[in-house]
Order: sequence, then structure tokens, then C-alpha cells
Amino acid sequence: MIIRLAKNSGFCFGVKRAIHLALTAAEGNNSIVTLGPLIHNPQMVEKLKEKGIEVIESPDEIGKRKAIIRSHGIPLSEKEFLEEAGHILIDATCPYVAKLQQIGRQLSEEGYPVLILGNSEHPEVIALRSYIMGTAYVVSEAKDFANHGGEKIGVISQTTQSIEKLRELVILLPERYKEVRVFNTICNATEIRQESTRMLAQDSDIMIVIGGKNSSNTKMLARISSEYAETHHIEIPEEINQEWLKNHERIGITAGASTPDWLIIEIYNRIIELVGEKNLAKNVEDIPVYKEDNNVN
Amino acid sequence: MIIRLAKNSGFCFGVKRAIHLALTAAEGNNSIVTLGPLIHNPQMVEKLKEKGIEVIESPDEIGKRKAIIRSHGIPLSEKEFLEEAGHILIDATCPYVAKLQQIGRQLSEEGYPVLILGNSEHPEVIALRSYIMGTAYVVSEAKDFANHGGEKIGVISQTTQSIEKLRELVILLPERYKEVRVFNTICNATEIRQESTRMLAQDSDIMIVIGGKNSSNTKMLARISSEYAETHHIEIPEEINQEWLKNHERIGITAGASTPDWLIIEIYNRIIELVGEKNLAKNVEDIPVYKEDNNVN
Repeated sequence: MIIRLAKNSGFCFGVKRAIHLALTAAEGNNSIVTLGPLIHNPQMVEKLKEKGIEVIESPDEIGKRKAIIRSHGIPLSEKEFLEEAGHILIDATCPYVAKLQQIGRQLSEEGYPVLILGNSEHPEVIALRSYIMGTAYVVSEAKDFANHGGEKIGVISQTTQSIEKLRELVILLPERYKEVRVFNTICNATEIRQESTRMLAQDSDIMIVIGGKNSSNTKMLARISSEYAETHHIEIPEEINQEWLKNHERIGITAGASTPDWLIIEIYNRIIELVGEKNLAKNVEDIPVYKEDNNVN
Repeated sequence: MIIRLAKNSGFCFGVKRAIHLALTAAEGNNSIVTLGPLIHNPQMVEKLKEKGIEVIESPDEIGKRKAIIRSHGIPLSEKEFLEEAGHILIDATCPYVAKLQQIGRQLSEEGYPVLILGNSEHPEVIALRSYIMGTAYVVSEAKDFANHGGEKIGVISQTTQSIEKLRELVILLPERYKEVRVFNTICNATEIRQESTRMLAQDSDIMIVIGGKNSSNTKMLARISSEYAETHHIEIPEEINQEWLKNHERIGITAGASTPDWLIIEIYNRIIELVGEKNLAKNVEDIPVYKEDNNVN
């Protein structure tokens, strides 16, 4: 029996930064609010609540409190409304997402219709769309972008999409548009995490993918993983079914960008218990990591 | 036995325009010169010579004569040299090629390294390259563009490349560059001619592809055709080998953008003779054309 964690998994730079900004703002018993969940991990959001960081859904609920703009960003109109209303805002928009918003705005200012590869209901995409002044299309699959063509088009991507999906979309465009301007706005950490998951899944019998059920990047990891191994996407240790682990020699674990280390440790330890082993982990560093180097050409 | 001509074949807009400009300039026994062959068809170049249009290879040979810039364009330095030397130039650069040159220049002015899909020794590409002030790469296949990556890249194509080759190249780029800006500069006539050739070849046993052996667009037609049927690329009727035509029911004919109608007629009639039929063509309109409509979805 081998249990291994993907080399690159868990918190990304943008999530760490957002949590750090929130915790700093909440120091000294300052009650603060986030507009929508700060990150897409319900367990972590619950922990933050214990530190006085409350999730609200509407700006009306802010009151006199400081408000944090979450890592996915918020629509421009909402931001402007809050600023005009005199609220103190702490902008925890991931810098990669902010860059994406800026590219979207620039493309539309330069007259490009903008094609977004992403999930139209995801907060990152909803916020992004608000930065595009002209035509915008949102598609989650290349096949959804049929019957469009014209002089020029700009292409950007939700930061957590897969490079394969971007390629599938881009390949359709040169014969339909005279000019195709693609910005690969998939965040590097996303690409690296996806690649680590892919490599581990190729060398595993079963994969446990940890992260919010509403987390795009975690769902993408599960999708990639399922191409190579039996895959289960879970949020908490209690979801693990002992039956999954039977008759499997190689168990792989990976985690989305908004999954905290303590949750990875809890889930690892739950697996250890269920398979009857004893070497529990105290820190994430205690968990064996899948060595990618042997497999890289 | 069926002998059919591809629906779209022979002279394109740019070639017709160049020949018209040359013939008009040569009217009234004006001796004029072209810098390199006006178009890539030796038989047509020979006919033009009879009208007083001589091919020269070096500007030194112009003398007092008017000089025609051929449809593929000439390098910028050469053009400036000629203008400064006071020569009268008639610019027969195909408008689509001129547009391509302008896009190449603009991309390099905006700081993009420029990736050209094309044949580095083709006069169109040699001329195009001169319009790019910064870095330029020329590749004839996607696989030739290995080990490059960076912040941004502009992609353009020789006007006679195939859309498939452009797609094969473009699909490699989003994971290597943050920004990929592709201009599909393949001329529409080229795409349509390729598609007509493909459809005819799919419904033929043998294909005769007519055009200069030095003609890029004709070579591309032959390449596409050979994927579906036995294919022979010829310039003149005398090249046809009677053996080719034996035991074949469906003979297809297509012609590159620089192939004049009279040559298509001569070759069609030669085939008619060799297979022992009698319905010779006087005009290109007399040749049965492959009906594409039945095959289009």
C-alpha cells in the first residue's frame, strides 16, 4: 500500500494572500465582512468566521464594517457602488485575477469582442465580465462556441481552466476570424497543480481530490484525475468510504487551491486509519509526496 | 470515364490583377521589366515575354524601363533603392500580400516577435521578412518551432499556406506564450481552392494538378490531393503519361492560382485525346466542373 500526495497541491499564492489580508484586518477583534465566501472552501470559511470574518451576500449588510473583496474579485459596478458609499474596502482580489480583468478591459477598449473560456456562473467570471465594455461570450467548452466568426476576437480564460480546453477552443478560431488574440490567463499555479495531479493519477489506482464542491479548480483536478484513475472529489474526511480503498495498492491525494493544509492532514490521517496503518501526520510535510522527477522527460 | 475540373481553380484575383497591370503597361510597345517572374508559372511568363515583358533578376538591369513589382512583393530595401534611383515602379503586389506585409510591420512595431508560417526561400516570405523590424521566425511546419516561449508572439502566414498547418502551429503556442496574436493571412481564394481540390480528390481515382513547379499554392494543392487520390503535379500537357490514366474511372483536374485558362484547356484536351474521347474544349467553360453542392453538408 502506498499513499502519496501530489507534489503541488493545496493553497495557492492568491488564496494565501487573501487569507493573510483577512486575518490581518480582523486582528484585535475587528469585525469584518467578505462579499461572498473569501475562497471556495466551506471548511476554511467556517474557520474564518470563528476569527470574526463573516460572509455576507449583499452590500446592504456591511454596516460600518470593513469589507474584503474576495480572491475571485467582484463586479466593477459593485466595487464602485461600495466606494461611493464610503465603505472601507480591502482588495484581496488575486493579482492574477486582477491582471485578467485588466486584459479583458483592454481588449474590449481596443474593439475586440471578448471570448471567455470559463463557467458563466462562477464569481470570477461574473466579475470579469463586468470589465468588458463591448461584446463578451462565455463558453465552458469549445463546442459551445459554434456559428461565430468575424474580423477579430480576443480570447481570455478563467484562471482555473485547463490548457487543453483553451487549446481546443483556440484551434477553432483562425479559420473563423482574421485576427485571433489569445491571452493565456490560466494561472501558472493552476497549470502546475493540474500537471502534478495528472502525473500522480497516472501512477495511482484511486485518487482522492480534496476541495470545495463549488471550487472550479478542484473540479478541474477531479476531471483530469478521472482520466487515469478511479477518482473521488470530497470536502471532508467523513466523506471517505472505506469500500473505495479496498483492493487498491496505490492511493493518490491532491487538493485544490483553496484547500488548507489542516484539511489535507485530516483526510490523510483518516485514510491511514481506514487502511489500518499507523503513521499519522502532524504536519503536511509528514505526508509522502509523489516524486515527479522520475517521470519527467 | 469521368473527367472533371475542380470548381475553384486557376487564376486568382491577385494574379489577374498583376497580369492586367503588366499588359496595360506594356501596351504600345513599351518595353517593361518584372523583378523576378511576375507569377509562378513559367509558361505564362513566356507568353508575357512575347508581349515585351521581360524578367530580370537584378535592379541593375532595369535601365530606363518601367519596372513591375510582382505579385509576391519585393523586399522593402529593394523597393526603396529603386525609388531613390528614380525608376518608375508599377506595384503589382497582390493586395492580400500587401496587407500581410503591413500586419507584419505593425506587429513588430508593437514589439511582438513575429512567427511566419511559410517557406523561408519563397519570394513572398523574403519580401515579408523585410517588413519586420524585430525578431522574426519562419517555419514551414509546427514541429520546426520547438523550444521557443516567452511573453508574447505574433503569428502570420504566407498567403498560400493551408489552414490545417496554421492550426497545427497555433495550438502549440498558448502554453508557451502569455499572449498569442494570430492573423489568419491565408488568402480566401487559397482556402477555397484547397477545399475544392480536396472535395474533387475525395471523389476521384487520379488527380492532375496543374501549376508551376515553383508555385507554393500549387504544391499545397498537390499535397492535399495526394491525401485522397493518386496525384501528379505537372506544368505542361507533354508531362502527362498515358499509363497514369489506365484503369481509372474518375479523373480530376485542378490548377494553381497562377495557371492560365489556356493551359488548363490544353491539358484537358490532352487527357481527352489520351483516353480516346472526342469532346475537346475550346473555352474553360466547356470543361465539366465537379459539383460540390451534393457533397456539402
